Formats: sequence, structure tokens, C-alpha cells
Amino acid sequence: MIRDAARALFAEHGYERTTIRAVADRAGVDPALVMQNFGSKEALFAAAARWSTPLDELLAAGRTELPQAALDHVLDAFEDPERRAAAEALLRSCLTHPAAQAVLRDQVMGAAQERVASTIGGPDAALRAALLNACVLGLTISRYLVEVPAVADATATDLERVLRPALERLVEPT
Amino acid sequence: MIRDAARALFAEHGYERTTIRAVADRAGVDPALVMQNFGSKEALFAAAARWSTPLDELLAAGRTELPQAALDHVLDAFEDPERRAAAEALLRSCLTHPAAQAVLRDQVMGAAQERVASTIGGPDAALRAALLNACVLGLTISRYLVEVPAVADATATDLERVLRPALERLVEPT
Repeated sequence: MIRDAARALFAEHGYERTTIRAVADRAGVDPALVMQNFGSKEALFAAAARWSTPLDELLAAGRTELPQAALDHVLDAFEDPERRAAAEALLRSCLTHPAAQAVLRDQVMGAAQERVASTIGGPDAALRAALLNACVLGLTISRYLVEVPAVADATATDLERVLRPALERLVEPT
Repeated sequence: MIRDAARALFAEHGYERTTIRAVADRAGVDPALVMQNFGSKEALFAAAARWSTPLDELLAAGRTELPQAALDHVLDAFEDPERRAAAEALLRSCLTHPAAQAVLRDQVMGAAQERVASTIGGPDAALRAALLNACVLGLTISRYLVEVPAVADATATDLERVLRPALERLVEPT
């Protein structure tokens, strides 16, 4: 599948050094087919980076359960070494390459933020949703990329127990 | 000053492409003096990256005022375009280069976390302190590196108003 090939190559080589041709080769298809399906390298990156957010499922939990569901999801997704490596690599690309940053901002975090905002509602919904995302992003980076000991070594249960009340404050209507 | 020269070069070229020789040249000193003062490139990076955390001042605020003080500090530090550019570049290096990551983990976040933990006290103090850092890191990355619109466009006052109660939950004894 083209998207899987793209995810593997973006994760391995980063955004800049991954080409449409290399993705096509790995997927065993013609580069023209990649362009036909995705339109651009940026769009292909967006499709590859989006893999790990089952937003419908998360939002079905409703406002009050959203912090727990979001934490569960992130901690589960990174539990598998292969998915973790891919997610880390994609995240690094997003923070270092402008085109990948635009994808993270507009297509991944932007899309999630809009739907989270309409789920939590109330004043400042967009800002609250974006800050909820920001805190989960900070957790992910601290635990899996920077590997801050207290956060990296904590069990998922302890992390959720300590962080959830803070995130719940963010989704509470004020 | 050697540290200023190092900060400028690390910010401009990233961790890997900055050499002790280049830092010495820029500071107008002999490379041996740089090594004599800092011992290694990693230690020099640590000194350059540490510039922006007046930890004594932040911790003097005490447990309950710490979230506000931390937010004030971060938002102030990034207000100046030059300091912002340097901080962003340092942060990117920390997330992409293993040696710089070790500095962020052990010398910057680790040191801050230990002192924040002893200021907030109570059960899970180390984890609470680390998660407070993680949320502030997530805010910084969302606002200044990824530039998520709701977070990037909000006023400092609005950001503090919305995020502070969540961070206060993290420093409350439970």
C-alpha cells in the first residue's frame, strides 16, 4: 500500500530525503499512480502522518471522557515499538521541515482541534481544544522523544492518574 | 562572550554543524580556551541552551504561583524576536540530535524538574513537576514551532487564563 510505504520511508529518512519515486518503488507501483492518488508529497505526508488518530472513536467518548480517551490512545499507540518509531520520526519531520510543519499544523492538529472544539463546546472552545492537544503533544515529546526520566519511566496508569485532572480542567465549561 | 557566540551558532546551524572552532572564531578566542572553560561541545550546548530559565526567580513565587510564573516567563522570553529565534533553534536541535537531546533531558529539564518537584512537594512531586514542564513545552512547541493558529494567535492573557487552572491542578497536593 502506498501510504504504508510512504510512512516507512518518511519515518526512516525524514521529510526532505523521501521522494515520490522512492515511495513508488517501495510500494511496487508507478510514481504517476502515487501522484494521481495523493497529488503532492505534502499530501502524501499528511496521509502517512494521520494514521494514528482514530478521531471518530476518540470523540465518541464525549466531552468529559475525552481527556482519558486521548491519553489512552496516545499511550497505546506508542506502546508498539514499530508504531512508536514511525510516530517519533514523523513528529521530528514535522518540527524541522516547513512543509511537514504545515501538515501537522493544518491537516493533523488543525483538523483534530476543530472537531475537539465542537465536542467540548463553551467559551474559548477552540483555544481549549488546541491547548488540550498541546499538553498531549508535550507529554508525547517528553516521554518518547526527549525521554525525561519521570515521564518516560512512569506507568501509563500513573501518567493518566496525574495528568487527567489537569486536562479535565481544560475541557470543563467555565 | 563564548556562550553568546555558541548560542548564536547553535541557533543558526543546529547542534551537529556547529564546531568548537567556529564558536572560538566568533568569540575571538582560542579554541583551547573554549574547551578549558566548557570541557565539551555538549557542555557548551548546555550552557547556551540554559540561558532562558531564571529558575531561582520562578521558584521564589512558591507552589501556588508557579504555573502563572512559568507561563509568564515562557511567553515573555519568546516575545523578543531574537530570543525567540534562538530558543526555537535550540529546541529543534534538542529534538533531532541525540547529544542535544541528552542536554535538554538531563541538564535543562532534569535540573528544572528536580527543583520544581521540591517546591511543589507532596505525592508524585517528581512526576507532577515533569508533567508541568511537559505541558509548558507542548504550549511552546504549539505556539512557536508548529504555530497552531488558536494557540499562536491567542493573546498571552488569554493563554494564561485558559491554561493556568489546568496547570494549577498539577501542582496541587492530592
